[in-house]
Amino acid sequence: MEAPKSQEKLNESIALVRGLLEKQRLVEAVVHSNDTRKHDLVESLVHRQHLTELQTKVGRLHTADIAHILDVLPPDDRLLIWKLMAATRGGDILLEVSDAVRGQLVAAMNADELLAVLQQMDGEDLAYIADDLPEAVLHTRLQSLPHEDQHWLRTALNYSEDTVGHLMSNEMVTVRDTDTLEQAAQHLRSLHELPIHNDKLFVVDRRGILVGVLPLQNLLLNEPASKAGDVMAREVVKFSPDDDASEVSKAFERYDLVSAPVINLRGKLVGRLTVDVVMDYLREETTEDVLGMAGLQGEEDLFSSIWNSARNRGLWLVINLFTAFFASRVIGAFEGTIAQLVALAALMPIVASVGGNTGNQTTALIIRGMSLGQITSENIPYLIRKELGISLLNGLTLGSAVGLFALALYQNIALATVIATSMLLTLMLAALVGLAVPILLDRTGRDPALGSSVILTAATDSLGFFIFLGLATVFLVH
Amino acid sequence: MEAPKSQEKLNESIALVRGLLEKQRLVEAVVHSNDTRKHDLVESLVHRQHLTELQTKVGRLHTADIAHILDVLPPDDRLLIWKLMAATRGGDILLEVSDAVRGQLVAAMNADELLAVLQQMDGEDLAYIADDLPEAVLHTRLQSLPHEDQHWLRTALNYSEDTVGHLMSNEMVTVRDTDTLEQAAQHLRSLHELPIHNDKLFVVDRRGILVGVLPLQNLLLNEPASKAGDVMAREVVKFSPDDDASEVSKAFERYDLVSAPVINLRGKLVGRLTVDVVMDYLREETTEDVLGMAGLQGEEDLFSSIWNSARNRGLWLVINLFTAFFASRVIGAFEGTIAQLVALAALMPIVASVGGNTGNQTTALIIRGMSLGQITSENIPYLIRKELGISLLNGLTLGSAVGLFALALYQNIALATVIATSMLLTLMLAALVGLAVPILLDRTGRDPALGSSVILTAATDSLGFFIFLGLATVFLVH
Repeated sequence: MEAPKSQEKLNESIALVRGLLEKQRLVEAVVHSNDTRKHDLVESLVHRQHLTELQTKVGRLHTADIAHILDVLPPDDRLLIWKLMAATRGGDILLEVSDAVRGQLVAAMNADELLAVLQQMDGEDLAYIADDLPEAVLHTRLQSLPHEDQHWLRTALNYSEDTVGHLMSNEMVTVRDTDTLEQAAQHLRSLHELPIHNDKLFVVDRRGILVGVLPLQNLLLNEPASKAGDVMAREVVKFSPDDDASEVSKAFERYDLVSAPVINLRGKLVGRLTVDVVMDYLREETTEDVLGMAGLQGEEDLFSSIWNSARNRGLWLVINLFTAFFASRVIGAFEGTIAQLVALAALMPIVASVGGNTGNQTTALIIRGMSLGQITSENIPYLIRKELGISLLNGLTLGSAVGLFALALYQNIALATVIATSMLLTLMLAALVGLAVPILLDRTGRDPALGSSVILTAATDSLGFFIFLGLATVFLVH
Repeated sequence: MEAPKSQEKLNESIALVRGLLEKQRLVEAVVHSNDTRKHDLVESLVHRQHLTELQTKVGRLHTADIAHILDVLPPDDRLLIWKLMAATRGGDILLEVSDAVRGQLVAAMNADELLAVLQQMDGEDLAYIADDLPEAVLHTRLQSLPHEDQHWLRTALNYSEDTVGHLMSNEMVTVRDTDTLEQAAQHLRSLHELPIHNDKLFVVDRRGILVGVLPLQNLLLNEPASKAGDVMAREVVKFSPDDDASEVSKAFERYDLVSAPVINLRGKLVGRLTVDVVMDYLREETTEDVLGMAGLQGEEDLFSSIWNSARNRGLWLVINLFTAFFASRVIGAFEGTIAQLVALAALMPIVASVGGNTGNQTTALIIRGMSLGQITSENIPYLIRKELGISLLNGLTLGSAVGLFALALYQNIALATVIATSMLLTLMLAALVGLAVPILLDRTGRDPALGSSVILTAATDSLGFFIFLGLATVFLVH
């Protein structure tokens, strides 16, 4: 395995793999276009030679880099490389690819092939990807695990996906509080390999209760004869398996943790959480907000099939269609008014558009604030006052601008006043709706981002049309 | 200082601080409403007593928790607590709060107060917050730094904000390749305190060229008499000060790094990058995408003043206003058509609304893909084909639905056909625009998220209205 690469070198690797894939496709085209048997044989050798070259080149890359290349390739090329690598590196690759790609790689194999890949993984790895595996294959694989790992895996899978229990690992190094540092160091040396991100040992008493942690540097800096219990740190950031993964991620960030112990209600050490898993979780979660606002589930893969993508996006578009029908009926109710003053039809989208964008700004701020843990029920009244204040300011300035625009175009002071007033009212309502949508989604246990933009623009469109055409009906037509 | 807290305990602390602030405000109200001198004196004592209580309670918290509380409090309360804590813990707090809040805390102090806080910080800390400090105060503080730190700080500040050079630290432990592990361990013991996230020592040759890294566990697991050069890891993920911080963050994630060396062009070790700084950077960057799409700069603070917020949001709203004026003129060009068939006014927002939402879905996917490093110029053709395919599918189904809706309402087959066709065409164009907006913003060196949603809906609105009203003019009116 080659050393990991910088982004630049990684891009070179991607280009190289692409080049090889290109050759591969040319060969395939020739093979398929010519059916002379002899020619076939020659080409088939060339074909195999190219595949071997591809396998060798890709095989030299760091697993994380292979996974990244798979994430980036279109589905056909992705599966070609996956089939080349699955037998030898499949287990590690499955761990590293993104969720959406993992589902595709798993789906491309039959039960036996998949089982062969899963044999490369231990209980811990299996727990990490279990959600993406077919029940039956996972069950078969489970049978052949050591009894202890089976137990661990079943426990981990019982915790819901967004909890510490689902993310924690059972790989950890523990020492007794009565051990000397010399004994602890011997224990470390007796292990073949240390777990990843092993920045500290966990110190337990004879009942297995966590009493402190021993950072590796404490181990190095103190006298070998000291007792672990005497030089350990007693103030420990620790978590419980039921803790919410999102809150815990924030704690990792706040306290700059590399690893942390997980304990049960009785204080007994049950697992270990590491920064790599937390970073992955955080990254997935925060980048999903961008998708969620537009009405997309997080699992959407940039390179999944058109059919799957269309279905994934369809749900919120259908909701959008119904809200648009509703907005259309709001306008329909004022057709008489519009027939008398056609200018209204040209002006009404201005109110709706600016209303939608101001509301979206508020929603985006609230969603980000929630991601960063800054929204509490105590500061919502303050936020309402603030957002109303901002929309009052913006409503007065933008309302005046749109009033002047209407006046210049249609030389109608009453019309200009109506649109300026509508703009002000719509912006203030948009601020309230922009606050309410993510907060209500969150309160009802949903992802505050999911579909928020669709819901918000539905509300601002209908409200904007209603306020503008309503005021116009009262003050402009007779 | 108390131990760090879980989110639940942290929320309790926030509630406690709020309670104390509330008492504080009551006392102030009494003090200001009553001018009897004796009463004043009594109240003033109570006042001071409450402030002391607040100071004691807050003073017991972990610095990261104080910073979080400051991030979450409204501006007045925030400044009250800041003034209480600045003298003793100001330096650490300034490091931990979010960028927007830091700016506010700095602005609330005069030069002398600020200088006193900066005296609590070393060159490394100063480099981290330098962008938020007034030039003059920073300059004064620089004078009193040790010569070596001054040099370091000036170098770090010369690198642009989004590079490794700006994020790297000069705190690192190096050993010579010819040192024995025993000597390395002695060197470690001789340090008063090890730098944060010190998971490995950097091994250099006599010219200071980085030749490898020595993970602490290698130090523990090998014979004390071994040479560092013999047991070190030679395959090292290393960076250069000019590397893009965003690419480097992805590498940290891919290779699960805790710390990494930074070297110059000659291979000489010049700094060290740690996972905490990288996590902060990544977090800021990805959560900013949500704001950027809605046309908000990342520095917007949820609790900043109404005036500043209104200005920050105003720019993109003004742009939005102009694009809305343009869309309005597109409709205005068809006023004659609308006057003949008022139903068009009611139906046209459906096309624009669904077009805007499908385009937003595409844009959100591309922005997320860019955040995760999955978009390369080679896969753009594939993405164009895919997005067009999806919008063709969705356009046919949603177009049929909207056609049936129009038919049911207006019993006009020609009108139904026109709106169904417009929907299909608009969705396909929306997919192309949704792809183009973030890609073009990125190619021209801008943040691909910033304002993307505003630009996109501007395009889909105008295109949607033009296509629908244009087709209606050709086929429906005479």
